[in-house]
Amino acid sequence: MTRERLSLYDTTLRDGQQTQGVQFSTAEKLKIAAALDSLGVDYIEGGWPGANPTDSAFFEEVPHTRATMTAFGMTKRAGRSAANDEVLSGVLNAGTPAVCLVGKTHDFHVTRALGITLEENLDNIGASIAHLVAQRREALFDAEHFFDGYKANRTYALDCLRTALEAGARWVVLCDTNGGTLPQEIGEIVTDVVANAVPGARLGIHTHNDTETAVAGSLAAVLAGARQIQGTLNGLGERCGNANLTTLIPTLLLKEPYASRFETGVDREALEGLTRISRMLDDVLNRVPQKQVAYVGASAFAHKAGLHASAILKDPTTYEHIDPALVGNRRVVPMSNQAGQSNLRKRLAEAGLEVAPTDPALARILDKVKARESEGYSYDTAQASFEILAREELGLLPEFFEVKRYRVTVERRKNKYNRMVSLSEAVVVVKVDGEKKLSVSESMDEDGNDRGPVNALSKALAKDLGRYQAAIDDMRLVDFKVRITQGGTEAVTRVIIDSEDGQGRRWATVGVSANIVDASFEALLDAVRWKLVRDGATA
Amino acid sequence: MTRERLSLYDTTLRDGQQTQGVQFSTAEKLKIAAALDSLGVDYIEGGWPGANPTDSAFFEEVPHTRATMTAFGMTKRAGRSAANDEVLSGVLNAGTPAVCLVGKTHDFHVTRALGITLEENLDNIGASIAHLVAQRREALFDAEHFFDGYKANRTYALDCLRTALEAGARWVVLCDTNGGTLPQEIGEIVTDVVANAVPGARLGIHTHNDTETAVAGSLAAVLAGARQIQGTLNGLGERCGNANLTTLIPTLLLKEPYASRFETGVDREALEGLTRISRMLDDVLNRVPQKQVAYVGASAFAHKAGLHASAILKDPTTYEHIDPALVGNRRVVPMSNQAGQSNLRKRLAEAGLEVAPTDPALARILDKVKARESEGYSYDTAQASFEILAREELGLLPEFFEVKRYRVTVERRKNKYNRMVSLSEAVVVVKVDGEKKLSVSESMDEDGNDRGPVNALSKALAKDLGRYQAAIDDMRLVDFKVRITQGGTEAVTRVIIDSEDGQGRRWATVGVSANIVDASFEALLDAVRWKLVRDGATA
Repeated sequence: MTRERLSLYDTTLRDGQQTQGVQFSTAEKLKIAAALDSLGVDYIEGGWPGANPTDSAFFEEVPHTRATMTAFGMTKRAGRSAANDEVLSGVLNAGTPAVCLVGKTHDFHVTRALGITLEENLDNIGASIAHLVAQRREALFDAEHFFDGYKANRTYALDCLRTALEAGARWVVLCDTNGGTLPQEIGEIVTDVVANAVPGARLGIHTHNDTETAVAGSLAAVLAGARQIQGTLNGLGERCGNANLTTLIPTLLLKEPYASRFETGVDREALEGLTRISRMLDDVLNRVPQKQVAYVGASAFAHKAGLHASAILKDPTTYEHIDPALVGNRRVVPMSNQAGQSNLRKRLAEAGLEVAPTDPALARILDKVKARESEGYSYDTAQASFEILAREELGLLPEFFEVKRYRVTVERRKNKYNRMVSLSEAVVVVKVDGEKKLSVSESMDEDGNDRGPVNALSKALAKDLGRYQAAIDDMRLVDFKVRITQGGTEAVTRVIIDSEDGQGRRWATVGVSANIVDASFEALLDAVRWKLVRDGATA
Repeated sequence: MTRERLSLYDTTLRDGQQTQGVQFSTAEKLKIAAALDSLGVDYIEGGWPGANPTDSAFFEEVPHTRATMTAFGMTKRAGRSAANDEVLSGVLNAGTPAVCLVGKTHDFHVTRALGITLEENLDNIGASIAHLVAQRREALFDAEHFFDGYKANRTYALDCLRTALEAGARWVVLCDTNGGTLPQEIGEIVTDVVANAVPGARLGIHTHNDTETAVAGSLAAVLAGARQIQGTLNGLGERCGNANLTTLIPTLLLKEPYASRFETGVDREALEGLTRISRMLDDVLNRVPQKQVAYVGASAFAHKAGLHASAILKDPTTYEHIDPALVGNRRVVPMSNQAGQSNLRKRLAEAGLEVAPTDPALARILDKVKARESEGYSYDTAQASFEILAREELGLLPEFFEVKRYRVTVERRKNKYNRMVSLSEAVVVVKVDGEKKLSVSESMDEDGNDRGPVNALSKALAKDLGRYQAAIDDMRLVDFKVRITQGGTEAVTRVIIDSEDGQGRRWATVGVSANIVDASFEALLDAVRWKLVRDGATA
C-alpha cells in the first residue's frame, strides 16, 4: 500500500520565540535550523523579517537547507496594494522560496481588531496571496482564529479559506490561535472544511496547547484529512506553546494508524537523533530539560514501581509502549524504596557490580537505601551516591583518604570602597597515605566574584589529594540543587551535585543534613570517590 | 436538561508518587489530601498500605474527607484464598471505605509476568473483588494493560472486565498502563466495552501521558461512555505521568460538549482555587512550577506577541480561550506597557500604597522589578520583598537599623567521642540609633542538634535590635526554600523565607546571591523590615 505524504512545518524559530523568556540570537537560530534540517522537516519558518532585528539578521545569513526556508508575515493592510505594503515588502525581501502570511478569518476580529469590513479583509487575503504567487514564491496562508471564526460565522470563515486557495496558496493552514478547541471538534470542523472548501492535500493544521491537547488536535486533523502539521520542537510557543513536533514525529512514524498510512520527511535513522535534538534546544535555552516529556524525557522510560521494574527485566515490552532506542532515549530503572531486589541487581550491574541473587548484601543495601531515603536522601537522581553506598556494603570501596575536619567562614562587610562584599574561606584537612594535608581556598572566582561557601569548600577539598590529584583535576561541579525535606521530625537540607569530567562523564551525588554546608560536603565527597572508583584508583 | 455525573478519582498520592524523584512524607500526603478534598474530587487514592512505610503511616493517620478515601492494592495471588493473601489483607487492614485492586487483563502478562493460566487469573479477579464486597467495601477494579490486552485478545480482556463486574465491582477502570494508546483508538475501544461488557455508568478510564495525549484520551473515553476519570494533580505519575486533573477539571467544567452534558463534584468556586492548589503541590515537591502548563501555568495567559498584547488591551477574548480568573490564574501583559503599570498600581494598593497613575516612581519600580527578576528574584511569591522594594523607590522605607557586617563559621570535626559533629556560629553587627551592637549565636538547638548556619545567622540578627526588639520577638522563621536558578556554573541561589508572627500574619521574602548565606541573610533582613513597617515602627 502506498503511504500518503504528510508535510511537517516547523515554527520553532518564529512562534516558538513567542515563549515567555525566549529570545534566540542569530547564531542560535542557525544552530536550531541545522538541527531541524538534519531531522527532515519539510519547512522551516525562520521568523518575521522586518519585525525584529534578530529575525532580519537570520534571513541575511540564511543557511542552505534541504527544508524549504519560509518567511512569516501578515496579509497586506487595507487601503494600499500588496506591492505598496512595506510590512509585506519587508517579508518578501528576505528572498525565501516560501512565504507564510497570517490573516483574519474570524468576523469578530476583522471588525473589532482590524476595524475593516469583511469584504476588505477578503480582498487583503486574495491580493496578498496573489502577490506572493506573482513573485514566484510558494504561498501559505495561516487562517488565524479559524476554529472560533468557523463557530461564529461558518460561511465567512470558509470564504476566507477559498479566497486564499483560489489566489494560489499551496497550503491553507487552520490555526487554533487561542488554543481552546478540543480534538473532537477539530476533527469535525476539518472534515467539513475538506468536504466544502479546501482539499486535504492543501490543508494544514496549527494548534496551541492551552487545553493540553495540541498534539491530539493535530492527530485528529490528520485523520480528518489535513496533510500538513505545523508545530515546534519541545512544544515552544506563545502561552502554553504550540503542537509539539518532538512528540508528533515519533507518533506519526511509530504508531497506528499513522505509521501504515503516512510517511514524512523524517526517516527512522533521523528519528534516533530526536532526544539529542530536544536536549540541544534546552541547552540553547539554558533550561533544565523536563524529565516527564513524552518520548524524549529522561523519565519517559523510567520504571519506578517495583512490580514494573521486575517485569521490565523479564521483558521490556511489558511496560514500554516503544523501544526507547528508536527515539535515541534510554531505559532507566531507578533506585527507590519501591524497588525490588531484581531492580537493585540491574542497577548494580549497570554500575559494573555483578552480584549473585543469593548475596545477603542485596538485602542490606536495600535496607540502607530505604533508611537513607526516609532521612531525605534520594537515590533515583543520585545514581553515583547509590553506587558508593552499594560498594561500601559490598566491601568494594577503597578508603582513598580520610577527612579529618573542615571549617568554612562566610564574612560580609564593607570593602575599601565602602560597599558590602562577601568572601568565603574553607579549610579542609585530609589524611592521604598516612600524611595529613591542610588545604585552604576562597570563594572568589577569576572575575573577582564571590561564588559562595560551597564553592570554596569544593576547591579546598580538590586542592591536594596527594597521589589521587591527577584523577580529580579534570572534575568540574556543573550543577547544584538544594531542597528542604522533612527527615523524621526536623527539616533537613538535601543537596544534589552534578559533576563532569574531561571524558564527558556526568554523575550525580547526594548529601543530606540540617546543615547545608555539611550536606554539600557529603555530596562533594561522594562525587570525588565515584570519580576515583571509575578511574580505577586503589587505596 | 439534567447533566450526567462524572466521577473524579485522584491518584496523586499513589500513582503520582511513582514520579521519578518524588517521595511524599506523611505530612505532605495529609496536606495534599486536604487540598484534593477542598477541590471536590470524589475519590482520593491514598497509597498502597503495606507496600511502603509512608503509605502505611498515612493510612494510620488518615484524615476525614468528604471524598471517598481509597486504598490501592493488587488482586490476590494464585494458589491461596483472598482471605489468606497477606498482601491483600494489608490493603484491607487500612480500613478505607473503598479499595481499588489492579489486576491483569492482557493474556501475555498473565502467562509471561505472572506465569499462571488465564483461568487462574480470572479466578483471582473474581475472588478478590468478591472478598472486598464481602468485607463491605466499595470495590474498584483497575484493568491493567487493558487496551493492549484488548488488541491482543479481545475476548479474554472483556472476560476479565465482566468477571470483576459480576463479582460486584462498583467501577471497572480501563488502564492504558503503558501510555501508548492514542485517543481515537481509546474512543473506539471504550465504545465496544460499553456495548458489550460494562455499562458506562460503571466504567472508568486511567491514561498515561507517554504520547502527550493522556488528557485527550480521557476526554475521548468520556464521549464514548466512561463516567469515571482517574488522574493526578499536575499530571504527576510513572514515566511521563498520568492524565492531568489540573487540566481535565477546567476542561470538563468550562468546555463544550462537556460543560453542558456533565457535572462533577468540583464547583465553580472550587475551580478558582485550582492555580493555588497546583502551585502548592509544586511547593511541596520544591519544584519550579512549569510556566507553560494549560490553565494554571504562569505563562498560560501571558501575551508576548506585540499584536496579541495590544488586542488583549482592547478585548481579552481576542487571544484568550477562557477568563484566567475562572481557574484562579491571571493575565500577564509585558510589564513595559500601560497594562503593566495598572497591574502594578493594583498590587501596590493591595499593600496599602496608593500611588497616582502619573507618579514617575511607577516606571522606576517596574524597571527595578524587571532587572531584579532577570537576576533571579521572584516577586510573585515574595510579596513582602516586593513591598519593601516599592517602599524604597517611593521613599517610604524608614532606615530602622544598619547592618555593618556579619560572619558565619561552619566547623566540622571529631568530638570527644570521636564522632564527626558540626557547629555553626554567627556574629552580626548592627547599628541602631547610633549605637553599635554585636550579637553572637550558635546553631545548636535545645536538643543539642546542629541546625546549620542560616539558623545561627537568623538568631544572631534577631538577638538585639535595641528599641525594635519588642516588635520582632514574636517573629518566627517557618519555612525556608532554596533554589538554584540559571543552572550551570553561573548559578545563583534564590532563598525564599516564610515568617510568621504572634498576630498570625505570615509573609514571604526573597534573597538572591551566588552565596547561599548572603541570599538567606537578604531574605531575613527583608522579613524583619516588613514586620517593623507593618507594626508601624519609625526610624
